[in-house]
Amino acid sequence: MQLGMIGLGRMGANIVRRVVEDGHTAVGYERRSAHIDELRAELGDGFRGSTDLTEFVGMLETPRVVWVMIPAGATGAVIEQVAELLEPGDIVIDGGNSRYHEDLERAAKLRPKGIHYVDIGTSGGVFGRTRGFCLMIGGESEPVKHLDPLLKSIAPGVGAAERTPGRTGEPSTAELGYLHCGPVGAGHFVKMVHNGIEYGAMAAYAEGLNVLRRANYGAEHSGEFSAEETPLEHPEYYQYDLDVPEITEVWRRGSVVASWLLDLTAAALHADPNLDSYSGRVSDSGEGRWTIDAAIDTGVPVPVLSSALFARFSSRGEALYADKVLSAMRKAFGGHLELPGE
Amino acid sequence: MQLGMIGLGRMGANIVRRVVEDGHTAVGYERRSAHIDELRAELGDGFRGSTDLTEFVGMLETPRVVWVMIPAGATGAVIEQVAELLEPGDIVIDGGNSRYHEDLERAAKLRPKGIHYVDIGTSGGVFGRTRGFCLMIGGESEPVKHLDPLLKSIAPGVGAAERTPGRTGEPSTAELGYLHCGPVGAGHFVKMVHNGIEYGAMAAYAEGLNVLRRANYGAEHSGEFSAEETPLEHPEYYQYDLDVPEITEVWRRGSVVASWLLDLTAAALHADPNLDSYSGRVSDSGEGRWTIDAAIDTGVPVPVLSSALFARFSSRGEALYADKVLSAMRKAFGGHLELPGE
Amino acid sequence: MQLGMIGLGRMGANIVRRVVEDGHTAVGYERRSAHIDELRAELGDGFRGSTDLTEFVGMLETPRVVWVMIPAGATGAVIEQVAELLEPGDIVIDGGNSRYHEDLERAAKLRPKGIHYVDIGTSGGVFGRTRGFCLMIGGESEPVKHLDPLLKSIAPGVGAAERTPGRTGEPSTAELGYLHCGPVGAGHFVKMVHNGIEYGAMAAYAEGLNVLRRANYGAEHSGEFSAEETPLEHPEYYQYDLDVPEITEVWRRGSVVASWLLDLTAAALHADPNLDSYSGRVSDSGEGRWTIDAAIDTGVPVPVLSSALFARFSSRGEALYADKVLSAMRKAFGGHLELPGE
Amino acid sequence: MQLGMIGLGRMGANIVRRVVEDGHTAVGYERRSAHIDELRAELGDGFRGSTDLTEFVGMLETPRVVWVMIPAGATGAVIEQVAELLEPGDIVIDGGNSRYHEDLERAAKLRPKGIHYVDIGTSGGVFGRTRGFCLMIGGESEPVKHLDPLLKSIAPGVGAAERTPGRTGEPSTAELGYLHCGPVGAGHFVKMVHNGIEYGAMAAYAEGLNVLRRANYGAEHSGEFSAEETPLEHPEYYQYDLDVPEITEVWRRGSVVASWLLDLTAAALHADPNLDSYSGRVSDSGEGRWTIDAAIDTGVPVPVLSSALFARFSSRGEALYADKVLSAMRKAFGGHLELPGE
Repeated sequence: MQLGMIGLGRMGANIVRRVVEDGHTAVGYERRSAHIDELRAELGDGFRGSTDLTEFVGMLETPRVVWVMIPAGATGAVIEQVAELLEPGDIVIDGGNSRYHEDLERAAKLRPKGIHYVDIGTSGGVFGRTRGFCLMIGGESEPVKHLDPLLKSIAPGVGAAERTPGRTGEPSTAELGYLHCGPVGAGHFVKMVHNGIEYGAMAAYAEGLNVLRRANYGAEHSGEFSAEETPLEHPEYYQYDLDVPEITEVWRRGSVVASWLLDLTAAALHADPNLDSYSGRVSDSGEGRWTIDAAIDTGVPVPVLSSALFARFSSRGEALYADKVLSAMRKAFGGHLELPGE
Repeated sequence: MQLGMIGLGRMGANIVRRVVEDGHTAVGYERRSAHIDELRAELGDGFRGSTDLTEFVGMLETPRVVWVMIPAGATGAVIEQVAELLEPGDIVIDGGNSRYHEDLERAAKLRPKGIHYVDIGTSGGVFGRTRGFCLMIGGESEPVKHLDPLLKSIAPGVGAAERTPGRTGEPSTAELGYLHCGPVGAGHFVKMVHNGIEYGAMAAYAEGLNVLRRANYGAEHSGEFSAEETPLEHPEYYQYDLDVPEITEVWRRGSVVASWLLDLTAAALHADPNLDSYSGRVSDSGEGRWTIDAAIDTGVPVPVLSSALFARFSSRGEALYADKVLSAMRKAFGGHLELPGE
Repeated sequence: MQLGMIGLGRMGANIVRRVVEDGHTAVGYERRSAHIDELRAELGDGFRGSTDLTEFVGMLETPRVVWVMIPAGATGAVIEQVAELLEPGDIVIDGGNSRYHEDLERAAKLRPKGIHYVDIGTSGGVFGRTRGFCLMIGGESEPVKHLDPLLKSIAPGVGAAERTPGRTGEPSTAELGYLHCGPVGAGHFVKMVHNGIEYGAMAAYAEGLNVLRRANYGAEHSGEFSAEETPLEHPEYYQYDLDVPEITEVWRRGSVVASWLLDLTAAALHADPNLDSYSGRVSDSGEGRWTIDAAIDTGVPVPVLSSALFARFSSRGEALYADKVLSAMRKAFGGHLELPGE
Repeated sequence: MQLGMIGLGRMGANIVRRVVEDGHTAVGYERRSAHIDELRAELGDGFRGSTDLTEFVGMLETPRVVWVMIPAGATGAVIEQVAELLEPGDIVIDGGNSRYHEDLERAAKLRPKGIHYVDIGTSGGVFGRTRGFCLMIGGESEPVKHLDPLLKSIAPGVGAAERTPGRTGEPSTAELGYLHCGPVGAGHFVKMVHNGIEYGAMAAYAEGLNVLRRANYGAEHSGEFSAEETPLEHPEYYQYDLDVPEITEVWRRGSVVASWLLDLTAAALHADPNLDSYSGRVSDSGEGRWTIDAAIDTGVPVPVLSSALFARFSSRGEALYADKVLSAMRKAFGGHLELPGE
């Protein structure tokens, strides 16, 4: 089967690689010809590419499968552009990080032209090349079914994890690593929540490690506490100079918190034990926010997911004004002065 | 009636003033003689003082009433010292910010000597002098009853607020601004929770004002968003250059959020509209922490009070390590780089 | 000056009363004629009303001032209806609880007709009649200026609170209790954040009182703790049978947490000391949600305000599914069984 | 090498099994003789047991290794009892869920007798038998070193996970699944934080799945919203009837949130797709609480871990009083009535 890929950045190229290596062919569109040449050299005849969109579309077999894998901000415009060149029965896939609201709008625009729209939330990051990508899919049944051979090649496959107890026989696609979640938008909706969970789980580890880092506070805080500090009641309880990188490593085997995120954390701490190469300004890319928006719209309590998001905002200095308000209040009612910076 | 006061700092001196001005007498102990002289000059014959603890105790009528009003860290030692000089039937009051656990220990030590221990949580800060102090009292009934004339003078009195609908007849002491909350420790327990609430309410205002400050984000954030930023979907919704000081002022009258804390905030913002005199490093003095500890011990959910406490920790840079862990994870799974600092 | 009021429910009627009693006149539109008759009987010649919208508009002097004070869901349609009957220069006010996004849309629709749109966030609830309403106003300068005499009558006036230290001379309108916050939508934006703060402050009190309620846990929890419970390490610390209604009363005078919300809480607890008349299903009416949405859009951390919102969701049973997921996980990894319900 | 085990419940028996199957011998003490007989039948000569503590101690080679694996509440008493029978140079291990404070006390009591105390936080739950146990160890270097052969047999071994990139050569013990974290108490400290993280990560999944469950809210909520409800602005965005069990399954392969907890969740949802067998009353067993206590003592912000803990408290009805306070306030200022229960 043939895959058309718009955007041969890291993600797009890796998807192409998995598809071609599994026996399919792929056609790529990308403005940077070097990216095309590189893939061509690597994949041989299974791959062809063009820097011209019309030419690219012309190289595709019908019904065309056009997977758009470019930054979310540019996706809408490119889909409109390529749709001009497509025919009824063709399938456009948005595999990027669009908000699912946009899927609904885009699908509605393409529908009158007979073009099918499929949204695929794609997880796996830089490791997807070898690990396979987890695919969360939204769209009509027929086009999604049509894509099945490609999806199977892109996803990790059942061997990537032990089978869930109780699941026997032919594995479901979910066990292979891809799932048709529902109508248009469902793929990005599920991917959005996936990222919301990711934020929460990441923060759980980060907070816990921060507690470990402070386990030696009783030994480190020699001398007096000022009137504006809370004295440590039991310094004898905080006399542990812990090796955080080794602790993340030991948790990787046998513990309840073993996870892929922990694997990555252990690797990062092994490479940079004090995390000196980081400033601690943590970005967020939208999905975490949208998850909270969805929760608020539907009345679902998400105190953990939102706390994780807000910690990122605060890491970027966005709590500063609120903190100044607090200091101003404290000075006003109690004459309290701020402590000097450390 | 006579009050003995150990510690003539701002709080102790103001309590002495209220008592003497209301027709009682007071005796003060303070190492800094200037404080004594000043009060003597101000209050005349109603007040005497000494820099010698034994002399101070000798100046007191029995049963002696000794109110200790010094920093929490020093209170325990001073109480032990003065207790050596007291007699059965005397009353020791801890009016400072002790943790209520300590009240239980101290009362147990004084009990065999026949000395009564009373803990009084005192709220009102620098305004207590004129506004009166809110007093939350723990101890046995008899000694607390004995103190009633003094407490009445220190507390604000019923006129400080409109009477609560449904309350008629002789005002209860709660309506006068003081309350015998329960046995030893109850006063500091209630004061502790009072401060826990204070943290939460302060944070509610601070966060809200921070949202107001950002209401012009659509206008301020000109230009592009980077791939590591979430674009503002509707810049047209954030085009308000709000006058935060005036907004806090308007809320003072008729709104649901009118409060004494808001009064102080409006005053602070009037004096320093951009809060330039603050760095935003917010201290916490123990009670907020102990409130969470108590909630955890007894299984009470306090997400708001704890969020307020943790925001103070974060304001002092204590989230930095956790933030670095997050950045390290993001780099590991997605190749994401941190944004440069602003 | 003359005020036209659409909707003579509690809020609308009380605004009319304040305006007429202050020497202005008012014309009301309301489908329920009894409401009109009642106000007429009460206010005399200063008030006239109609159950017919066209007649109502005909009774207004130009430039007409039409204040719409009806449930948020119906406001849009009524404004469209009445706008058909208005002329250039007339002013439409939305004084209800609309989301400020809608203000922008409505103003844009009215602008071509030369009709001015003003949004007024109105706080004060059932007490506004006597206490005055706090008014947060958005719109163009000219029409807002035109409304000044009416706003002054509706707002509480400077006497409703002590003047903020440092404010002298002629009081600003903020000191009178109303404020022109900015262009269209600014009034509802500020009111939205006001309510967000309100949620946070309310939760701070509620959580604190819940800690007080549990202060007797050591005495109440007689007997053993099961393997699925965390034993209370220090039962001796939780032996206080506190009188929560009296505590809220004592805090009203002199304490840092004195506020109007506390006044109301003390009154509610005086009337129903165990709150037996409440089920604890807490509604939320939108503004709290929208505040979080705005914070998320603009990257402002609001952990306290969001925790307050999510606690309301949870109070309505919306965490149940998440809780079941937790129990299922615990059973899976540890064989833990749920405790029986109490 | 020989292991003495006090307590042959699930955890103790499984540790014995791993040790004996790996070529060591074990001696068990257990009051329930059936447990001893069962293990004897299963393990043959490698295992002997006694229902008499003195006899048990007599069966041990010196220096004796006595691992205590019984409920945390009983551990202290049993350690005191057995210590009476031990000699200098013997090693007592607390492998249960004690708070690390107790380790410090117990070690101090045993030290004068020349008995070594080692605390081992043990993670792995019911799966540890086959998966191996993750061991976090506190104590002096010599006794911990002495235990090495046993620890190696109990832990999962390096093959249980891919090696962390950059780690080469002889695996560290952390890579084998056990780690000497520091002096006495360090093992239980690290295990405590492990569980704190566990609570946070569990809540992240639970909240996210709850958002998925509600993705069909627009379709489900037919009809009107009452004045006390926030209307759903965009019902068209919530029209997804998602298959939550299949979604947890698809995330197991290739996604960023793949983890052992997710494996368990997928299994639980496969077995009981609607979680009908759970009531949603979620217990907590201490470590999560103690993690927050430690964070508060040392000034570390843990908004996510604490939110997770408080959600468990709320799941058991502990927010009810706070919720009633909120409803009482809402009625007081706005005349709002509670919605009827669903």
